Amino acid sequence: MSTATAEYELAEPLMLQWLTALGVDVEFVRGEGNTLYFVGPDGTEVPVLDYAGGYGSLILGHNHPAIVDAARDFFDAGTPVLAQAARQPAASRVAAALNSVLHREFGVTEPYFAVFANSGAESVEVALKHAEFDRVLKVKALAEEITGHLEAAGAAVASGTAVLPETTVAALGLPAGSGFDAVAAEVGGRLAASAARPSLFLALERGFHGKLVGSIQITHNPAFRTPFATMAPQARFVPLDRLDVLDEVIAAERATVPDVVVEGGAVAVVQREFPVFSAFVLEVIQGEGGIRVVDRAAAERIRAACDAVDCPIVVDEIQSGMGRTGAFFAGSLIGLVPDYVTLAKSLGGGVAKSAVTLVRGGRYRPEFELLHSSTFAKDAFSSALALRTVELLEADGGAVYRRAAELGDELIALFTSLREDFPDVVKDVRGKGLMLGLEFHDQTGSAAPSIAQAALTDTFGYAVAGYLFRVHRIRTFPTASATTTLRFEPSVLLTATEIARLDVALRALAAVLRAQDEHAFTAG
Amino acid sequence: MSTATAEYELAEPLMLQWLTALGVDVEFVRGEGNTLYFVGPDGTEVPVLDYAGGYGSLILGHNHPAIVDAARDFFDAGTPVLAQAARQPAASRVAAALNSVLHREFGVTEPYFAVFANSGAESVEVALKHAEFDRVLKVKALAEEITGHLEAAGAAVASGTAVLPETTVAALGLPAGSGFDAVAAEVGGRLAASAARPSLFLALERGFHGKLVGSIQITHNPAFRTPFATMAPQARFVPLDRLDVLDEVIAAERATVPDVVVEGGAVAVVQREFPVFSAFVLEVIQGEGGIRVVDRAAAERIRAACDAVDCPIVVDEIQSGMGRTGAFFAGSLIGLVPDYVTLAKSLGGGVAKSAVTLVRGGRYRPEFELLHSSTFAKDAFSSALALRTVELLEADGGAVYRRAAELGDELIALFTSLREDFPDVVKDVRGKGLMLGLEFHDQTGSAAPSIAQAALTDTFGYAVAGYLFRVHRIRTFPTASATTTLRFEPSVLLTATEIARLDVALRALAAVLRAQDEHAFTAG
Repeated sequence: MSTATAEYELAEPLMLQWLTALGVDVEFVRGEGNTLYFVGPDGTEVPVLDYAGGYGSLILGHNHPAIVDAARDFFDAGTPVLAQAARQPAASRVAAALNSVLHREFGVTEPYFAVFANSGAESVEVALKHAEFDRVLKVKALAEEITGHLEAAGAAVASGTAVLPETTVAALGLPAGSGFDAVAAEVGGRLAASAARPSLFLALERGFHGKLVGSIQITHNPAFRTPFATMAPQARFVPLDRLDVLDEVIAAERATVPDVVVEGGAVAVVQREFPVFSAFVLEVIQGEGGIRVVDRAAAERIRAACDAVDCPIVVDEIQSGMGRTGAFFAGSLIGLVPDYVTLAKSLGGGVAKSAVTLVRGGRYRPEFELLHSSTFAKDAFSSALALRTVELLEADGGAVYRRAAELGDELIALFTSLREDFPDVVKDVRGKGLMLGLEFHDQTGSAAPSIAQAALTDTFGYAVAGYLFRVHRIRTFPTASATTTLRFEPSVLLTATEIARLDVALRALAAVLRAQDEHAFTAG
Repeated sequence: MSTATAEYELAEPLMLQWLTALGVDVEFVRGEGNTLYFVGPDGTEVPVLDYAGGYGSLILGHNHPAIVDAARDFFDAGTPVLAQAARQPAASRVAAALNSVLHREFGVTEPYFAVFANSGAESVEVALKHAEFDRVLKVKALAEEITGHLEAAGAAVASGTAVLPETTVAALGLPAGSGFDAVAAEVGGRLAASAARPSLFLALERGFHGKLVGSIQITHNPAFRTPFATMAPQARFVPLDRLDVLDEVIAAERATVPDVVVEGGAVAVVQREFPVFSAFVLEVIQGEGGIRVVDRAAAERIRAACDAVDCPIVVDEIQSGMGRTGAFFAGSLIGLVPDYVTLAKSLGGGVAKSAVTLVRGGRYRPEFELLHSSTFAKDAFSSALALRTVELLEADGGAVYRRAAELGDELIALFTSLREDFPDVVKDVRGKGLMLGLEFHDQTGSAAPSIAQAALTDTFGYAVAGYLFRVHRIRTFPTASATTTLRFEPSVLLTATEIARLDVALRALAAVLRAQDEHAFTAG
């Protein structure tokens, strides 16, 4: 609506065309709580009720006064933002505060070490990189151990204190009569071959973990991923509703290497598990994949399968974390103790760009600190705002978490009632707390051309978002990899009036879809 | 010195141990211009002269009043920070402003399209990803063209309007007497084999472009890179002082695929260049690699070699850009017109996390906007501060750029005089403007144990940084991948007094190193 540049848009012009086509191409000039304002044609502010919530970044709403005050205080104090290679007390305090929450919610006492980043995608990169580094160090330790065993066994054979039985030679597939040198070469060769295998990550189908050229390989949506298939880490994807596939994948990919031991005066071959799996990466509630919830049974099954091969679990709480689901960590509601947990989005209080990866003490490799760095990470400004955000969430004995759960129940009741009244329109209601999805039935057969066309081009949820914005001044968007599901992630400040407005708008939408009413759907 | 956490450090504890060992483990409580303050044992502020400059993020110094005012104004206006999928006028204005600078400095008129990010590493990821996407689309277009030619030639042979000569069959290495089906299968097979090759990037030895699991593969330092060698894109590295290697690498890697044409009633084979190279990525002045300057001759040679195979050049100006070298873009001083250019660090004015990748219009693929996204990128806060930063740099007809060049000349004169007086200590002086490196001779033979030990463990520059901080209250650090080179990246507000203080400190340092004085080097 407004003209931002003199000539034409240089920052993502195609995106602007598309926003314009949906009628959502406004400039928001003010934000407060769950309301965004743009300036209408008559020069007055037009309020829009925001259920998109910055894709999960606004658990405290737009410009929460306490966060804005923390920013002002920060500037008033003259605190330097970027003073790397010095103490970063604000970042340290965030790490300590998050440890307190982790210990309480998961009932553990082990420390989690914090590596800060600048975006959710970067925090996933940190987890992938640390997990792969850890795997490489485990491979190195195993190789040193086997090399030591070979040397000891070789010396024992040379000195006559041990013999090399033919069964050992045969166990390695070597020709009868082979000597110890051949055994050592075979064991060393198999170890080298295993060590040369590319890293392997496990992930869930429909999972979303960012779009950097490393992390994109574990983002499931083929449209996002396959153009870059020749780059970066390998991942095997497992469907959440068929976790037997996880057992099959692990069985197919797990590997052993031969080691030697001297027992009873003879050299014998034993098989050692080789660290094949860098990590299993998953969201507790899949955000972009259509708001799909991992339940306790699935979490237990994944944990058991991963533990059997010493594969760490990276729990991506970028969207589900920070109190949205009724607990600070959504994983705590299903007992999924993370080896790694990533946070971003709401961590900066809706103002700063803050992200962190927490690594369980038992798996943490301090040498990683010398390998990984970022100019902006651990900066004092985003750390100060993250600290204030965690304080606000933790205040009053978890009032925010209780409120998020209550509001979620109210919204679920609203959606469920809608589905009961419009079973032909609403297919499913999913999610927890303030991370909810409303899935619509396929509308490709609608008599309304714009509805059918949107459904055919996999943009149905965007067309619905346009309708809700234009006609009802409500903002929401579909989940990016499952566009028949609308996503609702309002802040914890949500009011009864705001819920009632959503009810009116969704009932009107459902009636329009049922009536296949082209005129009403394209109004506004 | 201060105790930031009650128990122990959870945010990079090894790093803190290391800072403590150097005696630089202070908490900076205030920053202004080139000065950082910590609170000393007597409770008063101790000023430290900051030549580290946030690793290049502080061209305007710590907490520049105009940037802080812009932040305050932003909050006073109540502008929403995160309102994705709407107009982002601040980001659009940044893109337009950067285009004005690009057009002026490089003498071009073509638009550069902006994709925003949250860190320098992310902006490199965007460039790599877009470049690979572009290459894949070029491969697709070539494949469609060749398929069309095969169909046309096949039809011509079938209808008798063209013949298939034996020379054509032989040119493809097929057995004599092979028919057109065999020709089509061979051409299609070679095309498929080429399309299956992994992406290939070219980069400079000593180059640094971030540490994400994608971008790390083009960061040269083996200590950072090789632990993750099994992950992500392939890169071939070229030494800056032996660019004949670039020609060799391109000659070895470039590839053609066969195509068919019908000419004079006969099917003939022609070779088509296959897009093998995703991009050549380089810094104009290598930051972490020891402040090594790409000169005009090198730039021309790289441009010619890349143009010959239609390989785009990604110019990483994350550290060299934003006015530091005497121009907004350091590449403009050597006539290196970028296909992609990345900016970050100082772009956020030393306060916000802002980063952007600019893509030359002729190479821009708008579809990329639908593939790539980031929750935090294009946010209103960092965009507003980036816009203010660019305005401040562009003010008064480029006064900042002229001042950076003048100050750089003064510092180079200081370093050169130091080298003349201490040729046994100072090895080299490199850089431009306010991006300078001072390289020291190898000190492994020093009679002072702490000097020799630091040199032997590749931490000499850090030990020197500790000395300068403890004894002279001056902050600087070595370049991370070349630790015998100290890096100087002060803000443009640098004063004559601050330069004189550096002179005194460096002369004292040089005298200590010459005297191999253990006591003096470990003082403070």
